[in-house]
Amino acid sequence: MLVRPKAGILDPQGQAVESSLRQLGFPVGEARVGRVVDLEVEASDPAQARAEVEQMCHRLLANPLIESFEIELEGA
Amino acid sequence: MLVRPKAGILDPQGQAVESSLRQLGFPVGEARVGRVVDLEVEASDPAQARAEVEQMCHRLLANPLIESFEIELEGA
Repeated sequence: MLVRPKAGILDPQGQAVESSLRQLGFPVGEARVGRVVDLEVEASDPAQARAEVEQMCHRLLANPLIESFEIELEGA
Repeated sequence: MLVRPKAGILDPQGQAVESSLRQLGFPVGEARVGRVVDLEVEASDPAQARAEVEQMCHRLLANPLIESFEIELEGA
């Protein structure tokens, strides 16, 4: 899943990336930095897998006050 | 772009996520944690945009010894 800072939330890591890239001569626009978490889960179907990962995001992986998450499933 | 620890490279963040999820009662397999960086670049075509972002990864965003990166483009 992808966890990103919500729009409007200050993102110091993104700002650091932005200014470093500009100093290296890359004329970039806004940069935002988030996390990608790759996980193996056992589930009988994709809907169950998604529901389980959603629970994990709510309970551990994403801070709902400042972060949004996106789940992508891959079959195994 | 997505930056992930290479296979075989120790990923303490992933291990922490793994054991925390198990303690919460989620029977997950391996977890790996990387970064997602969203960037705006100006380019005349997708190939040029990709080449530029590849440069940025090599020069700043990914550590080639321990990380691999993947670039996804979105038109604007």
